[in-house]
Amino acid sequence: MHVLVNAAISADGKLSSRRREQIAISGPEDFDRVDRVRADSDAVMVGVGTVLADDPSLTLDAPERRERRIESGKSANPARVVADSRARTPTDARVLDDEATTYVLVADAAPAERVAALRSAGAEIVRAGEDRVALPAALEQLEAAGIDRLMVEGGGELIFSLFEDGLVDELSVFVGPKLIGGRDAPTLADGEGFVEEFPALTLEDVERLDDGVVLTWIA
Amino acid sequence: MHVLVNAAISADGKLSSRRREQIAISGPEDFDRVDRVRADSDAVMVGVGTVLADDPSLTLDAPERRERRIESGKSANPARVVADSRARTPTDARVLDDEATTYVLVADAAPAERVAALRSAGAEIVRAGEDRVALPAALEQLEAAGIDRLMVEGGGELIFSLFEDGLVDELSVFVGPKLIGGRDAPTLADGEGFVEEFPALTLEDVERLDDGVVLTWIA
Ligand SMILES: NC(=O)c1ccc[n+]([C@@H]2O[C@H](COP(=O)([O-])OP(=O)(O)OC[C@H]3O[C@@H](n4cnc5c(N)ncnc54)[C@H](OP(=O)(O)O)[C@@H]3O)[C@@H](O)[C@H]2O)c1
Ligand SMILES: NC(=O)c1ccc[n+]([C@@H]2O[C@H](COP(=O)([O-])OP(=O)(O)OC[C@H]3O[C@@H](n4cnc5c(N)ncnc54)[C@H](OP(=O)(O)O)[C@@H]3O)[C@@H](O)[C@H]2O)c1
Repeated sequence: MHVLVNAAISADGKLSSRRREQIAISGPEDFDRVDRVRADSDAVMVGVGTVLADDPSLTLDAPERRERRIESGKSANPARVVADSRARTPTDARVLDDEATTYVLVADAAPAERVAALRSAGAEIVRAGEDRVALPAALEQLEAAGIDRLMVEGGGELIFSLFEDGLVDELSVFVGPKLIGGRDAPTLADGEGFVEEFPALTLEDVERLDDGVVLTWIA
Repeated sequence: MHVLVNAAISADGKLSSRRREQIAISGPEDFDRVDRVRADSDAVMVGVGTVLADDPSLTLDAPERRERRIESGKSANPARVVADSRARTPTDARVLDDEATTYVLVADAAPAERVAALRSAGAEIVRAGEDRVALPAALEQLEAAGIDRLMVEGGGELIFSLFEDGLVDELSVFVGPKLIGGRDAPTLADGEGFVEEFPALTLEDVERLDDGVVLTWIA
């Protein structure tokens, strides 16, 4: 499986403010780039923190991209994946609408009634891990379900875990023309953080877009 | 006064790990660039957090840059400035060696005996603010002392305050090929963070250097 992480950060590395409200960091050119990468992916993944904060739909914007997918025998939209150990995704979350298949990754700790509610709301449940979703095992199950290209759209807790588990192949980051600041604001990679050995990246591409720049790193 | 902030961050916006230990983020080409910017500055400023964590000397590396400064009637090294409300800079800190003039910015809250100790260790004391250094007033005093070009080398607490007070003219950031992670790791701009209006930046220049990229923003 190829795992591509994509995010937009402020010039100081933040995904949003300490209030965790969505902030416009990029612009139309980057939205279009993200839509293109989504269209080329089999699934788009976020952590439940992003579902609760932003309620994204994770579907394609451009109708012609949906048409092209259908023409090549795919679903109109890529599947959606939520890492959600305790099945906290609200049943009326946009990721559970009818626009695409949605996998919710849960851990054994997820209350059975929450899991049943998500299943009734249409989610495909993938179980891996005890207290927290075990990402390596969960991604193996997704791969078995036919997901070869996985795009990850945040947030910082999920992204850190994916790096910790050595699961990331590529990281593309739009760095935008704002300063957000805040020692408690979410950053591109949160979690516990590395302290001795740090994953090394290779800068593959630098492209100016909108009023910022997209940095593409190979992990 | 022209205020240029310069820092090296990981691909995820961190200045160092949550242990606040210095991490090699850039390389020889960026060190040389930083040395050149230092040589063109009248003073180099850090917060006391950086003095306590890294004990930097903030002097020029290249002897020929010191010679050129002397030839043009300047001191061999730019002056050094530490924002240090309570005068916590250790008297044996490298910034207090004899290589350059050092201004320590203190607030009224600084204990008199600590201020006296720093003065005996050779520091020029600049007093501004009650509990915390009032940066606008302190920078005015530095300007009156002949400092027209001020380079700020971190850390994230000081950088955020300078943005909050609208004192930053330029921000240059080396983004390096490492992922540090950590919700408690220091970032390029910490402090309370902005929540509604965010300082807007203009991307002036993008230059690949070492294994990363230098982004120059105009504030
Ligand atoms: N600018 C952008 O591109 C962008 C993109 C996305 C999000 N955001 C912002 O990022 C913020 C949300 O980020 P976030 O970091 O709080 O949330 P997140 O990464 O989206 O979700 C984190 C949650 O995922 C769950 N999870 C399940 N398994 C996990 C595992 N193995 N490792 C880590 N997490 C796992 C955890 O909750 P459980 O333990 O309950 O499972 C965890 O709290 C919001 O402010 C949003 O606006 C910005
Ligand atoms: N990668 C890089 O380029 C780079 C550069 C520099 C530092 N670093 C790293 O950054 C970390 C240190 O950063 P930091 O953010 O903790 O420290 P910092 O910004 O260097 O210093 C912060 C301290 O400055 C003092 N200060 C005085 N007046 C202030 C004001 N008006 N606003 C804000 N602070 C004021 C405060 O202490 P008082 O209240 O006691 O005065 C504050 O705690 C270290 O881990 C270091 O390795 C990395």
